Amino acid sequence: MNHPYRIGVLRRRLSRAGLPGLLVTHLPDVRYLSGFTGSSAALGLTRRTAKLFTDGRYTAQAAEEVTAPQIDVEIGSTPPAVAAVQWLAAQRGVSFSAFDPASTTVADLTRWKAVLPAGLRRSFLSPLPASLVEPLRRQKDDDELALMSEAALLGCRLFDHILTFLRTGLAEIEIAAELEHQARLFGAEAMSFETIVASGERSALPHGRATSALLPRRGFLTLDFGIIHKGYCSDMTRTVYLGQPRANERSAYEAVLEAQQAAVAAVSAGVSCSEVDEAARSVLRKAGLGDAFSHSTGHGVGLEIHEPPRVGAGQTARLQAGMVITIEPGIYLPGKFGIRIEDMVAVTRNGFEVLTPAPKALIEL
Amino acid sequence: MNHPYRIGVLRRRLSRAGLPGLLVTHLPDVRYLSGFTGSSAALGLTRRTAKLFTDGRYTAQAAEEVTAPQIDVEIGSTPPAVAAVQWLAAQRGVSFSAFDPASTTVADLTRWKAVLPAGLRRSFLSPLPASLVEPLRRQKDDDELALMSEAALLGCRLFDHILTFLRTGLAEIEIAAELEHQARLFGAEAMSFETIVASGERSALPHGRATSALLPRRGFLTLDFGIIHKGYCSDMTRTVYLGQPRANERSAYEAVLEAQQAAVAAVSAGVSCSEVDEAARSVLRKAGLGDAFSHSTGHGVGLEIHEPPRVGAGQTARLQAGMVITIEPGIYLPGKFGIRIEDMVAVTRNGFEVLTPAPKALIEL
Repeated sequence: MNHPYRIGVLRRRLSRAGLPGLLVTHLPDVRYLSGFTGSSAALGLTRRTAKLFTDGRYTAQAAEEVTAPQIDVEIGSTPPAVAAVQWLAAQRGVSFSAFDPASTTVADLTRWKAVLPAGLRRSFLSPLPASLVEPLRRQKDDDELALMSEAALLGCRLFDHILTFLRTGLAEIEIAAELEHQARLFGAEAMSFETIVASGERSALPHGRATSALLPRRGFLTLDFGIIHKGYCSDMTRTVYLGQPRANERSAYEAVLEAQQAAVAAVSAGVSCSEVDEAARSVLRKAGLGDAFSHSTGHGVGLEIHEPPRVGAGQTARLQAGMVITIEPGIYLPGKFGIRIEDMVAVTRNGFEVLTPAPKALIEL
Repeated sequence: MNHPYRIGVLRRRLSRAGLPGLLVTHLPDVRYLSGFTGSSAALGLTRRTAKLFTDGRYTAQAAEEVTAPQIDVEIGSTPPAVAAVQWLAAQRGVSFSAFDPASTTVADLTRWKAVLPAGLRRSFLSPLPASLVEPLRRQKDDDELALMSEAALLGCRLFDHILTFLRTGLAEIEIAAELEHQARLFGAEAMSFETIVASGERSALPHGRATSALLPRRGFLTLDFGIIHKGYCSDMTRTVYLGQPRANERSAYEAVLEAQQAAVAAVSAGVSCSEVDEAARSVLRKAGLGDAFSHSTGHGVGLEIHEPPRVGAGQTARLQAGMVITIEPGIYLPGKFGIRIEDMVAVTRNGFEVLTPAPKALIEL
């Protein structure tokens, strides 16, 4: 990972925003900028220097992971964010420092202010109107895209595996258990979110966590799952059919698939998120299923499972090359059934690359 | 769960603290007070009324889960905390409302203030010096103790199972995978934290997440894991030996076990946390292992895996009947080995009850 480059870009943004210092405490941001993966850390950044603060448990790990020559490491027993605030306040020319209010609790801020000299308490810590690191993280670089592709392919292998495992009589949680077990054996660090296994009428729940319900002899089965691979999250959904689908079920599936493919095809740098959403939504509207599509089309994904941008109605933000987003339209007919199909898609200059090439034609089991 | 009683106790505390209103947004607190388990919720409470706010995804679930007649439910599309703030500000006699600064981001607070009438923006939301709900949650009631005992026993069953599975040649992650798979099959909702499987020299890492390292033919193996059962977390650690332990390894194990048993025996309502910690620490000090015991003896556990109190040196808080704490002394000798033994213990009026009755005598495999 090119941490020196990232620090350089962030520093230019700091400079452009007229900010002499920045406190970074959101751990995915710290990891993105420094490579450090420990659970206790803060990063202080000025236009000239940068320092990562952590504690004694991580001495060896920090030395190994933080390789950018721009970043010093300080091990201490003071909470890392407090140490970083004190360090920033002691830097020459740093009259104030910005922080991210979305990842700072009111109690944190009170604690940080308490360690500042009285004269700095009121003015030194300045909330950013919007994160400075998040816009960098949105556009994945080549190293990140390679890892995300690996993560997504691991997800596809899991889907292949679970197809061989499915049979009537299994409980949803047995399927979740098998999926998660196999994920571990394939080398995943963890699941990226709570595995969704929703069968029969339960497929009409957009977030149907696996229960002890047994697979029905006939009906849809939605599998929505993701793993973490070297810090990066995967996310995919497939809906399969147990038994032989009725005509209305088959046509509903075809409509969701068409909507999903239309949204994927709409992806390209420069296109707005709402246009991608509308590409899916208009297909479902025409199929008379507009009201049954009750959520957004997708979201960004990376070091966190939900990242900007939101791919939904009214979202005017434009896609940029290097973004990785999910495309996951779905329909939910309470008491009947639900269907969702989701890919991870990388945005390229002239289009898109699907990172999850698992089959999407309706699978009947 | 006796939610009406909990609301009553909280209301008396509100009254005693001279607070006309309280905003509760920390989800484990919302669950504790109302029974609601959804991922998007806030609770507004005055001395007379209480209302839970959530969104349309949870209409059916909220109706089912929130049964206390004291709590109204409002479904809306406004973010729940924002709706709760607006509701609190509209209640007669509520001139200001307290909130928990430890679970509120600076960005949240800014957003909440923005929806208040101009005259209330500066003064309406008042940070609590300490959570009002957390002290209630510390002392588990009988319903909670029953669930936590079930959770802990499920953990013990997992340990029994994994003993039959262990053999040389396995990778640590295969053991973690098996443990987590079996947890699912036993009905656990999820793991309560990242499973620790640390073998050989890696047992000297207090938080050695499972890696692809193969089990050594000879050495310690530390297993630290927990599950979630009906919302409540379990937490236990056992260290076993692969092969035949050397004399120094055996004596180190005996010292840790003695320290652990001494700390458990010290547990009783009225005893300070530091006394319990010292009971373990003094044993290890006498064994010449004081420096190798580099963390606290334990922590509270309940709806969250880490809750107050902290059972460590200098912690003057006294144990109360109904608290559930972990007792988990350990020693870590870098480059050699580590040992940790952990039980979950309920504090009773005259002593303690061990919730994790899995064997602790050194197991040689």
